[in-house]
Amino acid sequence: MAGNARDPGVSVAARLLALLGVFDEKASALTLTELADGAELPIATAHRMVRELVEWGALVRAEDGRYVVGRRLWKLGLLAPDQSDLREIASPFLHDIYGATLATVHLAIRDGDEVLYLDRLAGHASVPAVSRVGARLPLHATGVGKVLLAYAPREVHDRVLRTLTRITPYTVTRPAQLESELRRVHRDGYAQTVEEMTLGACSVAVPIRGGDEDVLAALGIVVPRIGRDRARLVAALHVAAQGIGRSLRPA
Amino acid sequence: MAGNARDPGVSVAARLLALLGVFDEKASALTLTELADGAELPIATAHRMVRELVEWGALVRAEDGRYVVGRRLWKLGLLAPDQSDLREIASPFLHDIYGATLATVHLAIRDGDEVLYLDRLAGHASVPAVSRVGARLPLHATGVGKVLLAYAPREVHDRVLRTLTRITPYTVTRPAQLESELRRVHRDGYAQTVEEMTLGACSVAVPIRGGDEDVLAALGIVVPRIGRDRARLVAALHVAAQGIGRSLRPA
Repeated sequence: MAGNARDPGVSVAARLLALLGVFDEKASALTLTELADGAELPIATAHRMVRELVEWGALVRAEDGRYVVGRRLWKLGLLAPDQSDLREIASPFLHDIYGATLATVHLAIRDGDEVLYLDRLAGHASVPAVSRVGARLPLHATGVGKVLLAYAPREVHDRVLRTLTRITPYTVTRPAQLESELRRVHRDGYAQTVEEMTLGACSVAVPIRGGDEDVLAALGIVVPRIGRDRARLVAALHVAAQGIGRSLRPA
Repeated sequence: MAGNARDPGVSVAARLLALLGVFDEKASALTLTELADGAELPIATAHRMVRELVEWGALVRAEDGRYVVGRRLWKLGLLAPDQSDLREIASPFLHDIYGATLATVHLAIRDGDEVLYLDRLAGHASVPAVSRVGARLPLHATGVGKVLLAYAPREVHDRVLRTLTRITPYTVTRPAQLESELRRVHRDGYAQTVEEMTLGACSVAVPIRGGDEDVLAALGIVVPRIGRDRARLVAALHVAAQGIGRSLRPA
């Protein structure tokens, strides 16, 4: 069933995709040599294929000679329905929360063993956070991550709890403590973090449920401190999450 | 210099890209037959290549059997620096404007003879607008579009003014009238529309200038009516556009 590497068509397609696969958040501008090395291709082959990718608009050659992702791939990526539909539906709710709190607002889903940020709203009054749309962060150290971890399949949960890396002095790295927090997410309907990902930043997050009550995503906000605002913030998030969930369900 | 179609490598790459090129805003979920037809490929070839694209994560087969753009292309597209850097830099300024006005806020660039929306903020209190991130609209009927048209190269200007399609009864379709409005954009530093794209929606927009004073993008808001708020809205947009421009310039 799988592609046969000796079939020239399949093989060329795989090589072209391997070139695109070299790009990631840490390597978003690459020389031809870096692309060839990353895709394990001879320079001449890489050069020919990169030229095709540039002609089509998938890549662009920047002023310094390095290659970057082009506008055509950006537009193509926006057609991805899982991301775009959820973002589109959630967007006005996120902006309502932002308008009411001026806090950083996050919409996130689980991507393997990490949190993937689908959307982020932040103004100049918002607390700095390390998130960025399309970025991935650890599940155990973020508010949205704890929500998604609480509802993740058993094998994801077990893998994550075996490798609780410390990010700040306040990151929860004891599995028993995190387990107890995840149980509280189920009981209370929200998760929180206190400077566990970034010093000076706390977060509160709630689940977004689809038609079958499955948790599809998480909605969270980042604030300098939680304190007495918690009940108000959690209530605002729950209202928005219910609105998003209702909009996701077929009428 | 161009790719040789008989070189199997180049040819396969071009065919793979042709398959991806069939997707657009109006056709974001496609059957195998539609993909093959759109890319002008035999079904068997299209089938083999689509399988490669699915294995890599570029495409996903939806429940109804049609193919859609996958999460991996979405993440790859977000690495496009022209779009992502400008969006990232502009984002807090957009949210400041949204927080102050609760209006729909737009960040847009010119893409050929159309406006391309890079970002859009809108809450439930905002007036409905037809924009969507990644969508393209006519230059002559939108506030951000008029700004970008006022600073477009002569040949773009001439082509657009030859084909002023009517979208609402209020769309400006007389070239002389539009010319006069574009001169006012240069003189006054902002553009406006009154129900020219969508009935019930007015807009005000200003240019965003880079280090060399070139107009790189436009920043606009959509409101139910402008009236006496215009001076205040234009001032808020100018402050934000100057902030974005300053952040774009190397220190």
